[in-house]
Amino acid sequence: MTPNINFPATSSMSGNLTLLPTLVDIFNAHSRIKPFIHRTPVFTSSSINQILGAEFYFKCENFQKVGAFKFRGATNAVLSLSPQELACGVGTHSSGNHAAALALAARNAGVPAYIVMPGTAPEIKKIAVAGYGGIISYCEPTLEARESMMAKVQMETGCTFIHPFNRFEIIAGQGTAAVELLEDYPDLDIIMAPVGGGGLLSGTAIAAKSMNPDITVWAGEPENADDAFRSLSAGSIQEAVPPNTIADGLLTSLGSLTFKAINNHVNSILLCPEVIITQAMRLVWERMKIIIEPSSAVPLGSLMSNPDKGWKNKKIGIILSGGNCHIALT
Amino acid sequence: MTPNINFPATSSMSGNLTLLPTLVDIFNAHSRIKPFIHRTPVFTSSSINQILGAEFYFKCENFQKVGAFKFRGATNAVLSLSPQELACGVGTHSSGNHAAALALAARNAGVPAYIVMPGTAPEIKKIAVAGYGGIISYCEPTLEARESMMAKVQMETGCTFIHPFNRFEIIAGQGTAAVELLEDYPDLDIIMAPVGGGGLLSGTAIAAKSMNPDITVWAGEPENADDAFRSLSAGSIQEAVPPNTIADGLLTSLGSLTFKAINNHVNSILLCPEVIITQAMRLVWERMKIIIEPSSAVPLGSLMSNPDKGWKNKKIGIILSGGNCHIALT
Repeated sequence: MTPNINFPATSSMSGNLTLLPTLVDIFNAHSRIKPFIHRTPVFTSSSINQILGAEFYFKCENFQKVGAFKFRGATNAVLSLSPQELACGVGTHSSGNHAAALALAARNAGVPAYIVMPGTAPEIKKIAVAGYGGIISYCEPTLEARESMMAKVQMETGCTFIHPFNRFEIIAGQGTAAVELLEDYPDLDIIMAPVGGGGLLSGTAIAAKSMNPDITVWAGEPENADDAFRSLSAGSIQEAVPPNTIADGLLTSLGSLTFKAINNHVNSILLCPEVIITQAMRLVWERMKIIIEPSSAVPLGSLMSNPDKGWKNKKIGIILSGGNCHIALT
Repeated sequence: MTPNINFPATSSMSGNLTLLPTLVDIFNAHSRIKPFIHRTPVFTSSSINQILGAEFYFKCENFQKVGAFKFRGATNAVLSLSPQELACGVGTHSSGNHAAALALAARNAGVPAYIVMPGTAPEIKKIAVAGYGGIISYCEPTLEARESMMAKVQMETGCTFIHPFNRFEIIAGQGTAAVELLEDYPDLDIIMAPVGGGGLLSGTAIAAKSMNPDITVWAGEPENADDAFRSLSAGSIQEAVPPNTIADGLLTSLGSLTFKAINNHVNSILLCPEVIITQAMRLVWERMKIIIEPSSAVPLGSLMSNPDKGWKNKKIGIILSGGNCHIALT
């Protein structure tokens, strides 16, 4: 491959770990990914409204392709690459929704996706990634093993690494869910997303505050994985202490970009104990008849755990981040 | 109460066990119940289409109020009663969705609903019926006990008994789901519903064949509760042998009206073994991220069990009848 001299503007941004997308970048991402994504529906439930005493608008990213919002960011990232960056495919290390999302986004673009996964990952996730055409390399279940295997794969294939959250185009892509929600319901008082690595929350906060400066942006985070909460308190990124939560999409610490976005635009992070995550998930399953994964239940659960935060009787938009979880049929 | 001399036409029909509703009756039912029901969405799934090799359109009655299509028929029945019939409330014996549906329909009409349930019914169903304001009388778990308790309650309260399926207005109400599905997708090749007592299937068949004489109407029935299949073969109503199926909404035998409608309008009843019901349910849960009860999975499962019936590559509408089931979270 010849060296790239003329990177397009959006691609050069991917190496810039201080520049955040603006609403214009999120709108551009939306135009770019629209032919590939589902415009997911917004569900309401009169019984949940009645039980909790507020007016909820649930953006159903569990119905998104690959079953999670991650497909928005992955698609935007792949479509934003220069032909040179795209030529040898893309890669990531992940055992979760980002891996499946990147595999499908790459397949749609006609390039290979190299996915590094721990051999211990659930069989269902391996099948999902392989089903979307991802080329899997297995490694030991440690961060070091993942990174060194990823470096090896990049060396061998020349693929472009796509970080799951700490990347300009990923944040811009994830922000498109909030754009759609606010297009449908412009007068929300509060908008919420769960926070793990912070890609969804960053995009949501930038989009929401730009579209409506009066809106309150809250995140829900598991009490047992409260590194984002501690990071905002400390004013610097705090590592996730080995987290122990059912919300397996929210184990990661923030990155430099997502910390900056969240620090600038998010009003509060509310914490949720494990038992309330399960209660909130059950409430959505039983009352709305839709399947959400535990991570998606954290914003609702964090409200249930913080009844005095002034959200009663408000119009609250919640992004249900995904629906990929093991289901036991009894 | 004074005796009723001038019953309105629709009410007198409820005592007539040979007259079936026509498409006009179903349209009238639709106008009557529209302010009370959800117009449920029709979901599609490219992955299910690809896996099974046909084009599926799923009418999501799991999102209907009380979580099942039953609310359509119950609402139509309550709203069709004369003031005299309505005055002392309505009643039924049921441990399933019809009980919850009638309780809510009665509450919307401002009259009491007397529900006879076996004391052994699942706690969650008792809570649901009570939550909609139903007044529950418990009895032993036999048909005799239910009928004699119902007679006692009717004697004491003067309530009007609303049969769960063998009633003109119930069939007309249930047919409105197919009307909506065919309004949205007029060019279906096949339309399917599950069959238990046959109210949904009767309404579906009458509506579909009247709106499009070329459409094929199929039912799905559990192999372990195949009384409707045997009834069509024999040309007369066959009793359900004590059935043993996970599809707990499909245990009942046909009634005189539903047998007639099904015999006249349904092309075939396809059977589905238990293990395939569970597979079909899992397919919908995992791929579509929506919760359906086992009964709802029977039509899809019956196709999977009968791959050579000529449905491949066809446009197939399936009414997902409900979403009320016990969920285990692991």
